[in-house]
Amino acid sequence: MGRIVILRIGHRPERDQRVTTHVGLTARALGAQGMYLAADDKGVVESITDVVSRWGGTFFIEDKVSWKRCIADWKAAGGKVVHLTMYGINLPDAIGGIREVDGDLLVIVGAEKVPGEIYGLADFNVAVTNQPHSEISSLAIFLDQFAEGRELNLEFKDAHIIVHPCPLGKRTEER
Amino acid sequence: MGRIVILRIGHRPERDQRVTTHVGLTARALGAQGMYLAADDKGVVESITDVVSRWGGTFFIEDKVSWKRCIADWKAAGGKVVHLTMYGINLPDAIGGIREVDGDLLVIVGAEKVPGEIYGLADFNVAVTNQPHSEISSLAIFLDQFAEGRELNLEFKDAHIIVHPCPLGKRTEER
Repeated sequence: MGRIVILRIGHRPERDQRVTTHVGLTARALGAQGMYLAADDKGVVESITDVVSRWGGTFFIEDKVSWKRCIADWKAAGGKVVHLTMYGINLPDAIGGIREVDGDLLVIVGAEKVPGEIYGLADFNVAVTNQPHSEISSLAIFLDQFAEGRELNLEFKDAHIIVHPCPLGKRTEER
Repeated sequence: MGRIVILRIGHRPERDQRVTTHVGLTARALGAQGMYLAADDKGVVESITDVVSRWGGTFFIEDKVSWKRCIADWKAAGGKVVHLTMYGINLPDAIGGIREVDGDLLVIVGAEKVPGEIYGLADFNVAVTNQPHSEISSLAIFLDQFAEGRELNLEFKDAHIIVHPCPLGKRTEER
């Protein structure tokens, strides 16, 4: 399996800080390598960097990215582009073709409005149901189905906090 | 498969309105029957009611619910309770047992802090990875895995807007 990196577009700092942070943390927890943010938002960068430093792994976050340049560079390097949109092909009909991609995947996660150009630039426009819900859910289900659930058992290197699964209450370890 | 209803707790109107709306819309899109909100928030109720009226189906939303009463009533009626928490048993190890439940499921989705009592009241404390990410992602993956992906093809009755899946651009129908 190649690398998976998220490109978050349409983020507005005054409105989307929490949702974009959830997008980034979801990406990290489910095995993506990092997130490019096409906006200037130190708050999101700090929240995610803080989680990585305490919970481990090597997830990166980079803001002030030009989405056009990011997509162009990704494609020039041979990577493919998935755009999550409720208007796309429904996941059950799309996932097989995406799993066959030999190479890295850039997964575009938009906020409310997305520039029309994105549809044409993407190799796959994919819907996680054609209903309105949440870009966070869409990303989560996409990543889970792409990895066929294996990413749910990831371990993160150099973690300072570890949760030990427990049927009742909380069991954490600090290192 | 029995009914699935969400109980959203720990919601604070000034902070959680968007996230709780995403929780409700995710629940609806992925086949849950409704959401109880243990808070007073007309804004969330209106957003979700508006989506249901345009996009169809019978999803209900009810605010000002007492979580204690809600859980007690659910159990008294023979239903089981799943609590999504990063401290619980990881989903791959829990989902089999939950699929065997014969009856209705109440799925508790907390915000940042959850009363300790909830862990003891739940029949299953379930983590979607033991990493910090998003209650929206956790609910999405839980519902998707519970229904083994079949809910991604749900159709909603009496919809006034329908999206027709499309490899490029947008194709919607108004009725």
